Amino acid sequence: MTNPSRNSVFIACSIDGYIADSNGDLQWLNSIPNPDGIDMGYAEFISKQDAIVMGRNTFETVIGFEVEWPYPLTVFVLSNSLQKIPMEYADKAELLKGEPAQIQAQLNQRGYHRLYIDGGSTIRQFLNAGGIDELIITTIPVLLGGGIRLFDELNQRQWFKCIETKRFLGSIVQNRFVKESE
Amino acid sequence: MTNPSRNSVFIACSIDGYIADSNGDLQWLNSIPNPDGIDMGYAEFISKQDAIVMGRNTFETVIGFEVEWPYPLTVFVLSNSLQKIPMEYADKAELLKGEPAQIQAQLNQRGYHRLYIDGGSTIRQFLNAGGIDELIITTIPVLLGGGIRLFDELNQRQWFKCIETKRFLGSIVQNRFVKESE
Repeated sequence: MTNPSRNSVFIACSIDGYIADSNGDLQWLNSIPNPDGIDMGYAEFISKQDAIVMGRNTFETVIGFEVEWPYPLTVFVLSNSLQKIPMEYADKAELLKGEPAQIQAQLNQRGYHRLYIDGGSTIRQFLNAGGIDELIITTIPVLLGGGIRLFDELNQRQWFKCIETKRFLGSIVQNRFVKESE
Repeated sequence: MTNPSRNSVFIACSIDGYIADSNGDLQWLNSIPNPDGIDMGYAEFISKQDAIVMGRNTFETVIGFEVEWPYPLTVFVLSNSLQKIPMEYADKAELLKGEPAQIQAQLNQRGYHRLYIDGGSTIRQFLNAGGIDELIITTIPVLLGGGIRLFDELNQRQWFKCIETKRFLGSIVQNRFVKESE
């Protein structure tokens, strides 16, 4: 296969596994001083992806930030409730419905082979379907003590291996796990 | 202070934060081939500790293994229900009752300054009391999908920093977090 497909997660979480605190707040993600604004590999990661797949919540959070649209790739928004993408984002995002396997098959067929899967519930759906090949987890070194967890229950074990680990800002650690081939 | 006290955790968990699977099984901890039997820093860690503090569950699990007593240090067993330590372990383990802060004060006064805090519920009690200074977490690269979690809810945030990260066997990652001084 010249274009092997790969679904990747690139996300930050706390030591105790939360991606947002119990108020949905994300300030803690940026509370470690980063004077040079290093991106911890994000731009390089994004440059290797073909498209982003996210849920409605993440999409609505992003468009609520009132900053410029941050993605250099087409975004596919998974939602059963959203009727259409707001007009001003019509050239940036596309609405999709379906299960992870269908979504992946459809996007692969359209030439999108490297998918960046983002947003807690979308990640959990893909994980539960066994559809995540790579997890790049940036651990912000805090115990939040509560909030929204990255990982939920799964119906089967999945083995990965950690192929890379890096520290940033003398404080943060980023571990890269890839799925063990069967 | 010539003998600063430090309470440390040295534990393995899955990518999704479990220390035992939903049957309490621990086989997955050793399923990555380790032909040379590397200890991933355990002996060095233990050599720097003065005593081990664990709960009754962990103690009873260890004495149930039917192998030689594995600890080169005095073990303090926290339990409100256990009446006494079984006779054959009387020179190896001592029973203690009390809250984490009392336990620590008592052991520090007796000259035990570096405490290895072990076992899920004992770790969670000490964390909840803000009594853990160092977390050495060895991540076995599996999503278990369910089981006993290392971290529970906490009543306050606690900041650490990751001061070291190491990979073992091309697959496992060990991150060392130390508490941020206030």
